[in-house]
Amino acid sequence: MTSPCAACRMLHRRCNAKCMLAPYFPADEPGKFAAVHKVFGASNVIRMLQRVDEERRDDAVKGLVYEAYARLRDPVYGCTGAIFYLQKCVEDLEKQLREAREQVLQSREQIDQLMNFLMNKEMI
Amino acid sequence: MTSPCAACRMLHRRCNAKCMLAPYFPADEPGKFAAVHKVFGASNVIRMLQRVDEERRDDAVKGLVYEAYARLRDPVYGCTGAIFYLQKCVEDLEKQLREAREQVLQSREQIDQLMNFLMNKEMI
Repeated sequence: MTSPCAACRMLHRRCNAKCMLAPYFPADEPGKFAAVHKVFGASNVIRMLQRVDEERRDDAVKGLVYEAYARLRDPVYGCTGAIFYLQKCVEDLEKQLREAREQVLQSREQIDQLMNFLMNKEMI
Repeated sequence: MTSPCAACRMLHRRCNAKCMLAPYFPADEPGKFAAVHKVFGASNVIRMLQRVDEERRDDAVKGLVYEAYARLRDPVYGCTGAIFYLQKCVEDLEKQLREAREQVLQSREQIDQLMNFLMNKEMI
């Protein structure tokens, strides 16, 4: 007899070879299921996974676990906190990139002016 | 008698002035509660809001609604899809910024060389 997966152990139910949750919530990582259970509820997690093709369930579980941990860590913003932060990073980087490109243009103009000046000098 | 909020209407329960959900789920925006109810479940939403100070519940609801809509739109990645996308944007922008700054440095070196060359020429 194998030990039940982390989900079945938490839900006090029998775990068998057909358990839909076992591949994603192994017995040795109980924290993952505890987190999604707390935030989404076990029945919602099962329903959400049933809506997803089997080969994409691993990604879906990773996303749900990430979101759940983020919500437990930050009950106000959850993983939207990361989105706001990254949006701010993108805005800052875009601003810095605009400035750097402006500097490149200015430098090129200066180089052109110096080259023209030099060529005129050569001709004198 | 006022009409029940979107949450109480969906949960078929009496809504009154003390309803904790009414400020965040007005009757004229039923989609918001429907989304969080579907993804997190009503009791989880209520429990999560109870963990948050009253003045921060508006932000918390916005985050939950955002996450719920993202999960319904993309059942595999949910709002972690936005996080992956933004992380990719940040990496791309950082690379472009490094390249632009490298160009600025190269241009400045070129300007210095031209200036030195010009000054030497003046002295001849």
